Amino acid sequence: MHSYTNILALIAEAFASTPFVHEPRELYEPISYTLEGGGKRLRPALVLLATDLFEGDISAALHPAMGLEIFHNFTLLHDDIMDRAALRRGKETVHNRWNDNTAILSGDTMFVLAYEYVAKTDPSLLPQVMELFNDTAKKVCEGQQYDMNFETKTDVSIDDYMYMIRMKTAVLIACSLKLGAIIARAEPSEANKIYEFGIHLGLAFQLQDDLLDAFGNRDKFGKSIGGDIVANKKTFLYLKAFELAREDDLIKLTNLYTDRELAPEDKISGILTIFRKLKIDLSTISEIDAQLNAALQLLDTLHADPKRKLELRNLALGLMKRES
Amino acid sequence: MHSYTNILALIAEAFASTPFVHEPRELYEPISYTLEGGGKRLRPALVLLATDLFEGDISAALHPAMGLEIFHNFTLLHDDIMDRAALRRGKETVHNRWNDNTAILSGDTMFVLAYEYVAKTDPSLLPQVMELFNDTAKKVCEGQQYDMNFETKTDVSIDDYMYMIRMKTAVLIACSLKLGAIIARAEPSEANKIYEFGIHLGLAFQLQDDLLDAFGNRDKFGKSIGGDIVANKKTFLYLKAFELAREDDLIKLTNLYTDRELAPEDKISGILTIFRKLKIDLSTISEIDAQLNAALQLLDTLHADPKRKLELRNLALGLMKRES
Repeated sequence: MHSYTNILALIAEAFASTPFVHEPRELYEPISYTLEGGGKRLRPALVLLATDLFEGDISAALHPAMGLEIFHNFTLLHDDIMDRAALRRGKETVHNRWNDNTAILSGDTMFVLAYEYVAKTDPSLLPQVMELFNDTAKKVCEGQQYDMNFETKTDVSIDDYMYMIRMKTAVLIACSLKLGAIIARAEPSEANKIYEFGIHLGLAFQLQDDLLDAFGNRDKFGKSIGGDIVANKKTFLYLKAFELAREDDLIKLTNLYTDRELAPEDKISGILTIFRKLKIDLSTISEIDAQLNAALQLLDTLHADPKRKLELRNLALGLMKRES
Repeated sequence: MHSYTNILALIAEAFASTPFVHEPRELYEPISYTLEGGGKRLRPALVLLATDLFEGDISAALHPAMGLEIFHNFTLLHDDIMDRAALRRGKETVHNRWNDNTAILSGDTMFVLAYEYVAKTDPSLLPQVMELFNDTAKKVCEGQQYDMNFETKTDVSIDDYMYMIRMKTAVLIACSLKLGAIIARAEPSEANKIYEFGIHLGLAFQLQDDLLDAFGNRDKFGKSIGGDIVANKKTFLYLKAFELAREDDLIKLTNLYTDRELAPEDKISGILTIFRKLKIDLSTISEIDAQLNAALQLLDTLHADPKRKLELRNLALGLMKRES
């Protein structure tokens, strides 16, 4: 059995020993820069944990796991262009450090590398692996489109939002786990169950992200608090607040979100005051808990070694306690 | 045996019956728009012709062939953002008609669709097919990066240029043919030979493009003549002219390419005069002929039905006679 810590070390070593240094360097430098940037390595870790859960050989899952991490980083790279983001993991974004064209083309190349690594699997599994990855990649693109649509759409419901984060975030978490299960040759019903576990975990993970952006600890969060508020992002918190606010609060909330003269810090503190009054933090935590519990119940029903299940359970619980 | 005309009709029908209409429509509309845009459908035609050449079942090659056409259109879509191109096949480019973000994300989605269609093949062939396609896609990205590098690089040699167009254009032509051969379960040595045929054909094809841009018939070319000249593109013609020009001609050529005050039509006619004087058109035709002959010699050595080989031979010769 492999611990989460052990698995993270294996992934770190795999990336450290694959520097992605090729010609032309103008294309590959931004790729190394992005992949060296770290991050939680959550998706490849989930691949290996799922392989280990079903008692498969994790060394056979290492390359496909790297493929999903490369894919995830490719989506961040292209999303950052679309969002005009300046920073990613405390470092300049690729389009800022180089330029948009470099970010587009290096991103495209990372997408190919993602397929190349995902495909480094037993040939007999390849059709299944490709089908899962294609389906996931398409949904992630669709999720990003819904996210962009929401910027100008005025009637976004919480259901719409949950669907969007399912596509944009949860399916890749779910795909990571199912990929691990496939490589371990788990029963299809088990592979599908761990996929559903991943969907709930992914939804909880994204809601936790929304919560941290508003109520996180600035020193620990690693980026400034209130970024979503300043950008008028239609997060779970935003939508819940508009659902619950009445009379004065609704007017205040609307004014705070539409007043372009307002200093960002005043906007953030004004909106956080209303969020607190309406107990939006508690509503969000309650939704996170619901998703987490749905995930953990699914995990319980898996036919797998309890000690291995515990490793995944602890990881899920740990993700919800994170502060960044 | 299937004729080129018959094969083009099959491909047209396949695209017409696959409208790529899905939700969210903001993502898929630009994809349908791009894939309805037509074009020569050269790459999918080459897949089917190669399958037919090796007496395979062309219906088994239709989806992978569509995959390569989708991939080609994806690269055009992203290249057009990078080049800030306004028109493609006489229609507004996607980033112009919608915006850059839409063009980036619809392009990414087309890339997934390309993989999805390429993967619709006999599972036993999938590892080989994926390896070929990944290798090709990576090289196409590298070629595009070299092309962008050349915009500011001052010491580009004709060898550098030939290497760039091999990556950017020829490998996808070669991949199309090899993919068809793999699907027909041709001998690996035959599949590699038709790949090499495709490399030479692709090089000839790109050189012909360069030639048409300068010396084409405006009415037939479908876009304005001299686009590469106005953009100071380091084409084969540009590089050959600087290689051959001496004294006065070299000074004139340098002035014409660097004088920013000059009207485009004067720049074009001035440079074409020098090109003609230096017989750059003839040098280019001679290089095209060399590549074409290398291609046709390889075709001759293939172990295949002479009538089927003739179909590919005629297509190759026809491509060199095209006026658009």
